[in-house]
Amino acid sequence: MPLTEEQQGEIAEARGHSAATLRPVVPALEARLHAPIPVLDHGLVRVVDYMGDDAAVVQAARVSYGAGTRTVRDDAGLIRYLMRHWHSTPFEMCEIKLHVKLPLFVARQWIRHRTASVNEISARYSVLDREFYIPAPEALAAQSATNRQGRGAVLEGDDAALVLALLKDGAARAYGDYEAMLDEEGPGLARELARMALPANIYTQWYWKTNLHNLMHFLRLRGDAHAQWEIRAYAEAIGEVVRDWVPLTWAAFEDYRLNAAQISGPGMAVLCRMLAGETVEREGSGLSAGEWRELMALIGRGG
Amino acid sequence: MPLTEEQQGEIAEARGHSAATLRPVVPALEARLHAPIPVLDHGLVRVVDYMGDDAAVVQAARVSYGAGTRTVRDDAGLIRYLMRHWHSTPFEMCEIKLHVKLPLFVARQWIRHRTASVNEISARYSVLDREFYIPAPEALAAQSATNRQGRGAVLEGDDAALVLALLKDGAARAYGDYEAMLDEEGPGLARELARMALPANIYTQWYWKTNLHNLMHFLRLRGDAHAQWEIRAYAEAIGEVVRDWVPLTWAAFEDYRLNAAQISGPGMAVLCRMLAGETVEREGSGLSAGEWRELMALIGRGG
Amino acid sequence: MPLTEEQQGEIAEARGHSAATLRPVVPALEARLHAPIPVLDHGLVRVVDYMGDDAAVVQAARVSYGAGTRTVRDDAGLIRYLMRHWHSTPFEMCEIKLHVKLPLFVARQWIRHRTASVNEISARYSVLDREFYIPAPEALAAQSATNRQGRGAVLEGDDAALVLALLKDGAARAYGDYEAMLDEEGPGLARELARMALPANIYTQWYWKTNLHNLMHFLRLRGDAHAQWEIRAYAEAIGEVVRDWVPLTWAAFEDYRLNAAQISGPGMAVLCRMLAGETVEREGSGLSAGEWRELMALIGRGG
Amino acid sequence: MPLTEEQQGEIAEARGHSAATLRPVVPALEARLHAPIPVLDHGLVRVVDYMGDDAAVVQAARVSYGAGTRTVRDDAGLIRYLMRHWHSTPFEMCEIKLHVKLPLFVARQWIRHRTASVNEISARYSVLDREFYIPAPEALAAQSATNRQGRGAVLEGDDAALVLALLKDGAARAYGDYEAMLDEEGPGLARELARMALPANIYTQWYWKTNLHNLMHFLRLRGDAHAQWEIRAYAEAIGEVVRDWVPLTWAAFEDYRLNAAQISGPGMAVLCRMLAGETVEREGSGLSAGEWRELMALIGRGG
Repeated sequence: MPLTEEQQGEIAEARGHSAATLRPVVPALEARLHAPIPVLDHGLVRVVDYMGDDAAVVQAARVSYGAGTRTVRDDAGLIRYLMRHWHSTPFEMCEIKLHVKLPLFVARQWIRHRTASVNEISARYSVLDREFYIPAPEALAAQSATNRQGRGAVLEGDDAALVLALLKDGAARAYGDYEAMLDEEGPGLARELARMALPANIYTQWYWKTNLHNLMHFLRLRGDAHAQWEIRAYAEAIGEVVRDWVPLTWAAFEDYRLNAAQISGPGMAVLCRMLAGETVEREGSGLSAGEWRELMALIGRGG
Repeated sequence: MPLTEEQQGEIAEARGHSAATLRPVVPALEARLHAPIPVLDHGLVRVVDYMGDDAAVVQAARVSYGAGTRTVRDDAGLIRYLMRHWHSTPFEMCEIKLHVKLPLFVARQWIRHRTASVNEISARYSVLDREFYIPAPEALAAQSATNRQGRGAVLEGDDAALVLALLKDGAARAYGDYEAMLDEEGPGLARELARMALPANIYTQWYWKTNLHNLMHFLRLRGDAHAQWEIRAYAEAIGEVVRDWVPLTWAAFEDYRLNAAQISGPGMAVLCRMLAGETVEREGSGLSAGEWRELMALIGRGG
Repeated sequence: MPLTEEQQGEIAEARGHSAATLRPVVPALEARLHAPIPVLDHGLVRVVDYMGDDAAVVQAARVSYGAGTRTVRDDAGLIRYLMRHWHSTPFEMCEIKLHVKLPLFVARQWIRHRTASVNEISARYSVLDREFYIPAPEALAAQSATNRQGRGAVLEGDDAALVLALLKDGAARAYGDYEAMLDEEGPGLARELARMALPANIYTQWYWKTNLHNLMHFLRLRGDAHAQWEIRAYAEAIGEVVRDWVPLTWAAFEDYRLNAAQISGPGMAVLCRMLAGETVEREGSGLSAGEWRELMALIGRGG
Repeated sequence: MPLTEEQQGEIAEARGHSAATLRPVVPALEARLHAPIPVLDHGLVRVVDYMGDDAAVVQAARVSYGAGTRTVRDDAGLIRYLMRHWHSTPFEMCEIKLHVKLPLFVARQWIRHRTASVNEISARYSVLDREFYIPAPEALAAQSATNRQGRGAVLEGDDAALVLALLKDGAARAYGDYEAMLDEEGPGLARELARMALPANIYTQWYWKTNLHNLMHFLRLRGDAHAQWEIRAYAEAIGEVVRDWVPLTWAAFEDYRLNAAQISGPGMAVLCRMLAGETVEREGSGLSAGEWRELMALIGRGG
């Protein structure tokens, strides 16, 4: 149960108060406002506030590029043009604020995105709750033999059981130590010190606010197949939100970022030779083995 | 007349569409939404969108500092505490988007604030309008003799008349040259080149979006007595907006920033000696002439 | 002659003082240090200071990715891998500081890059010099008929003569007005007001400091064929500097950014069908006319 | 012993290679380059690279404010003026790169400063070392009864012994679990998952690069009495480095930031009444209890 009673009360209260506004309103996002989207075993993402919509992107772009843009393109076409040509400032005109509950090791990856505003629960002020991320069996994977940062086969049998036991027992013991150190009848250790004992799968919470441009950058990197599975789960949940919020922008983002290919100069030369009917080998192509493999995968000739 | 008919139509349309939202709503700011606030002779500021309110600042702070803060302080007290102790992230949780029309030389000072999103009308794409800032007589001041960046006495008589004539005639001639170079029956020069001829008092426009923390930093620097009078006029107009938007934050900002004094270590030593009844002279105080003068002004002993 | 005697003296002095350091040193960049590279008619770029080199990029990456990276890749290969996979922080470990003299309208485009530190000459404090950018004949181009932000054919004959006369005379008159308003025997107008009369082709100067990652982003956007020719002249000058400074990074930047193609998901589908021997028409491809044109150009089938 | 043999080798090699440069060189900082400064039980700070010096701050300020500044102030006076009047960009012209080894919970506070470049060792790629921060006895303090984020009395006797035992045993067990999960003969769990079990007092390492302005902001907040003692230890170590690097800037920073007082508008009114000889009570002063207490402390009337 990821939400405290107090938080549930706040959500009900927030969803109970509707008011009139002259600002842009996105009904599909209003339907999501304040309500938690579950992620992992105890985590969540919920939209707390937002500013702007697809039309706000268009409005900003039309200020920059002037009246001439009005006749030639409809909104969807303009947004696609902006995305294709790496225009970023119109997308900065939309803003979103999320409440996120996430394991500490995911928070450490997430916070590397510097262009956002964050208010995180402080373990100097508050005693953290006894909630830890314990992976589902299908997420317990072995170290990849070929990729230093990746996962290989899913663990089975005794191996999986051992890992789950170590994670659960370790978390329980660490939280027990935490409480023992904090105990006012005992050491009464300062909270800012006692939290040292807590492992990286404990859950933390924050408010996280960023603009649409930076959010898409986050989603591209953290939703990528190279990102750790746990942070991708958050990226996917947020992606669903963005799709509802700014559907035209999301469609352009899928075509020109998520599903797009970046092909190097030497890689394009290989493609052009292939298109001209030539059979091209890696030797002499100027590409390294890794580049060659990635390029062949892009054109469906991998493996 | 600072607004085109098209813009007036957009404003009327924007103010004509009200919708329900579950987000925080600030009625006093809704009343201002989209409507232009005149600044200088042809400039304006208008609020296009906003996110959050005083309660959003409090909400974020309470996440960080935990339940313990709930009982001891009311919202106003918490906001004052945050401001006094330089906590910045809770104020980042509010965001505002402004449409601003301003002379180019003011835009050049403004853009130095890097933590904002901007979409400016592009003179590569559009032909700029024939609108120039011509100072009102009371704003036409001589160079200060004592302050290299300041203004002295207001110009009078022939001096004022000469300056006004030069500014008006110069702007008219420059705009005439601009049109002549653009003329499709004549040179048809590229817009991106023709705009070179336009002087720095021509008006430009942009959408400018920033968070409340960065906005207050802007207002402190650009509303200061050392800032150029023209940009201060914009800072004052925005200050009125902020007062309506987040009244508790604004009151704390006035007390702890706008009206606060920053006193150096040596300056505090002087004050403590004075409070102990000692007569202190600058000699031996460790303060430079400038610092001494500034300190005496702070305690009402200037001049 | 773009440098004052005082600046020449400073350069000679700076190049005359060599000292020993334990920091990374790049001999090819030392050879350039402090010496101005001419750009446009009166502009310049010169390297004032730098931090780091290709090895600093590698050093930072190896900290992140650990000892395992040491055996599998040499420095060039690692840098290419980082660039290909959009790793940015290792490139942030290098920093450069430039002194730039540039027309004000170029400065306005340049300053939109927010992730840099800037100290610009202030026309509130100083009287600007009488130096204006007057395009060379081959840079005087007509407005493009097909591209709203672009240039078309070079002007010739009377058209060119008219534009040059208007630019030169306009600048001369504006500077004369400026001096007349500043005249201490006359109005003695404040400098911060008098500068309003100066056109956008006057030269300004600044110190500009940024890291290698942000610099490459700047070079990609401002060295692009869509950027205004005048700022591209600066991007090209800086590109030469970067090539000398971090040659491995520059080579990877050329392959994976400058000469790379970004191809959308639908675009890749078209290419894969073509590679399979199919003749593909735009109808039914899912690409807009603009996207189709850009894709055909990438594979050498434009026109 | 905080440094691996490999790191020691790198340091010796780095300190063994001197080369000539035309850049500004600070001999007192060269003496420190690459050499580790111990912090806490296993932590360190070492300067890896730097750019600029006090003269670089002055050089940038003189560009902005022009020739007029040359005659009236010497370098120290100009730097004091810049600091007093909150000019930030000249201080951005200096840059420093540090290698830091620090406990993970300190890293989490540190990373909240967003205006820096960071490359941290990745526990996805590398197996972390068995090194944990175990506080010295004098750093083991009870939770403060009056300050929710502070420490009270130092623990003694059995309380201290219990806490130390829990921290040491907990770290040992957690690291044992980590190794057991990674064991290639056993589960061979992916490193990115196994690191979940590690507590927040494990050491991590990063390269951290920032400019002098942002560094001073960091030092002011993290060297403050309200900051956690462990991060203050790092701030103090870096403060010593900055003092050697830019002594004029450091002196101004001490006077106008570290030792300066920020006094609110109502607080200044109280001081002025006191200076006029009046006896002022909190009632009627307009100050809250907290503000009054802080003000009295500033003028040595606390307690």
